[in-house]
Amino acid sequence: MTDFPPSDPVDLDPVALTGRLIACPSVTPATGGVFDALQAMVEPLGFTVHRWIEGQDATGHEGPVENLFAVRHGPAGSRHFGFAGHLDVVPAGEGWTAHAFQPEVRGNLLYGRGAVDMKGAIACMVAALADIPADAGTISLIITGDEEGEAQHGTRALMERMAQLGEKPDLILVGEPTSVHRLGDMMKIGRRGSINAWFTVEGREGHVAYPHLADNPLPRLVALLADLDAMELDHGTDWFQPSNLEITEITVGNKATNVIPHRGMGRISIRFNDTHSGAGLCARLEEIAARHGAVARPKIYGEPFLTPPGEFSAMIAAAVEAETGLIPEPSTSGGTSDARFLKSIAPVIEFGLCNATMHKRDEAVALDDLYALTRIYRRIVLAALS
Amino acid sequence: MTDFPPSDPVDLDPVALTGRLIACPSVTPATGGVFDALQAMVEPLGFTVHRWIEGQDATGHEGPVENLFAVRHGPAGSRHFGFAGHLDVVPAGEGWTAHAFQPEVRGNLLYGRGAVDMKGAIACMVAALADIPADAGTISLIITGDEEGEAQHGTRALMERMAQLGEKPDLILVGEPTSVHRLGDMMKIGRRGSINAWFTVEGREGHVAYPHLADNPLPRLVALLADLDAMELDHGTDWFQPSNLEITEITVGNKATNVIPHRGMGRISIRFNDTHSGAGLCARLEEIAARHGAVARPKIYGEPFLTPPGEFSAMIAAAVEAETGLIPEPSTSGGTSDARFLKSIAPVIEFGLCNATMHKRDEAVALDDLYALTRIYRRIVLAALS
Repeated sequence: MTDFPPSDPVDLDPVALTGRLIACPSVTPATGGVFDALQAMVEPLGFTVHRWIEGQDATGHEGPVENLFAVRHGPAGSRHFGFAGHLDVVPAGEGWTAHAFQPEVRGNLLYGRGAVDMKGAIACMVAALADIPADAGTISLIITGDEEGEAQHGTRALMERMAQLGEKPDLILVGEPTSVHRLGDMMKIGRRGSINAWFTVEGREGHVAYPHLADNPLPRLVALLADLDAMELDHGTDWFQPSNLEITEITVGNKATNVIPHRGMGRISIRFNDTHSGAGLCARLEEIAARHGAVARPKIYGEPFLTPPGEFSAMIAAAVEAETGLIPEPSTSGGTSDARFLKSIAPVIEFGLCNATMHKRDEAVALDDLYALTRIYRRIVLAALS
Repeated sequence: MTDFPPSDPVDLDPVALTGRLIACPSVTPATGGVFDALQAMVEPLGFTVHRWIEGQDATGHEGPVENLFAVRHGPAGSRHFGFAGHLDVVPAGEGWTAHAFQPEVRGNLLYGRGAVDMKGAIACMVAALADIPADAGTISLIITGDEEGEAQHGTRALMERMAQLGEKPDLILVGEPTSVHRLGDMMKIGRRGSINAWFTVEGREGHVAYPHLADNPLPRLVALLADLDAMELDHGTDWFQPSNLEITEITVGNKATNVIPHRGMGRISIRFNDTHSGAGLCARLEEIAARHGAVARPKIYGEPFLTPPGEFSAMIAAAVEAETGLIPEPSTSGGTSDARFLKSIAPVIEFGLCNATMHKRDEAVALDDLYALTRIYRRIVLAALS
């Protein structure tokens, strides 16, 4: 661990930087102004910026979207530390008492969409890098405009570009808002994988008074969903809670009380730990569907990842404890993040702001948390490069 | 049986009468013109006509609707025969090659909404009565404008009015289109009862990644529907097919793949024979729902009725055989009819035209069938009053 004085002043104020990013509306898929703002922040710090647009083809997926890879090389043979994150935000929604895209400080809070998820964390990364000497090592920023959506053209495209450039971090920290009650109480050392699956059962429409002339698909749909709900997944691992399946939707759309419908549809969502692969679960879903004469359309949204507790998590915990007095819980709970992609090139852990207001109206970050997270990130970078 | 010459001419032509009724649009709830037309037909035959409007209160049910009770009394002590039916029709729908409410004869077919269900049969009743002597006995027409809808203000209101008037038929024939392939091949000596039931299961909404903070109602809904589908009803009787339950609708309405919904709803339809009562089945539904934490809202649409084969069915069969050479099958199949109400005041059987085009586009009746049904109805009346 580097003995870094926590009271060191920063050249760039993380509250002002966060506000500049919030002021650039960037609902997924993000392009343009918000990336201009980030580029203007990091180029003066000696970073080379690569920006490009992805998703301009006719794939039917979200796009076009912008990505940014910024790198500042240390001396030959330096270690390489990567910060990853996203500049896109979810839509503002209704009911704000503040302006979603006009940053405003009230008391100790800075309001705006993205304040915690995760423009605030990106501002802290920039502020943290401001006074790290160029010879400390190689540092990169891996920033997408497509994380909150389908993530088709975001971090995966960044990884391809990094491979072309020959850039491969030794460790990657994703700045997702992992803290729950207080800044520093949780980091994510893994995430579960995610599958959504749609099931369709076909039959033959008819009148309820003449069932022999019809073929009701709904008993088969109900039996299928009961079987899916009863699937034995696992009992969890040292680091993961048990995998879980939820029925999320059932649709028939039959208004007539005296009609047997011709079709029924169901949808499930699975969050699964690293005792499964997405492909293995999809095969099980298709097999169960076939037993009930149903057609399954499973889609893997992410494979699970785990960076088992060790040197990297200890490094983060030490930085957090030094600044907050808290030892972050190494968790694998919650939804997916782009760490599911990044895990293939380096050990990856997520740590960032408190997530209480993420995706909600009046998203806001505590000013103190922005300053503390800046100091934590600076400690982590220096430790990782040493 | 009266020995009635089948070649006797009728004073009123049933094809013309059917056309006059079709020309009065009368989609449920029916009022006005179509009743004026019927009144103008039967008053010259010596019938006293009672007409009134029902359903003008704020019950939320279909209405206002018109009803007509016409009666011609025979000598004191006469037997009383009732014809029952409805002048309302289902909506025309799309795709007609003819006009739904402008009667048109093409070849041997008369086209128009209600041609077979059941303005044609009512025209045949009138034509049949045209030359039955007034001293043959008491004859009544029990005609509603609310059979195809909720039937809240139709035949039940007619029965109340008849009770007030002291009119009680000894036998009632409902002119529903019971014939299947050829006029005369089927009569209905009973009908199954009917229940629709709605089930609601409540839970607590949440994110699929945090199932412990939510309560998914859909596994309970699926288990409930599977239990309902597995209900043991019966194996049928001498005259009824087995009772049957169909799941007809499942609704959740959750668009978000990552959200556990807060509520799920299902709907079933039961057609049941006379081994059950509606109330008994409703109690069973509510008990099963309670086991799954669901709320059941069952609604009885009709109790079953049966007029066991005997003198009345034999009378009808003889009339049908004399005119068509066919012996009608005494069936209890199919949907409900207003016979479910009328059964409480007299033995009731349904017999009428071929139902192939009922409720469909280009509803049409064979001219020959209208003449034959007129002769059959005349035979039945004379036999019933003798």
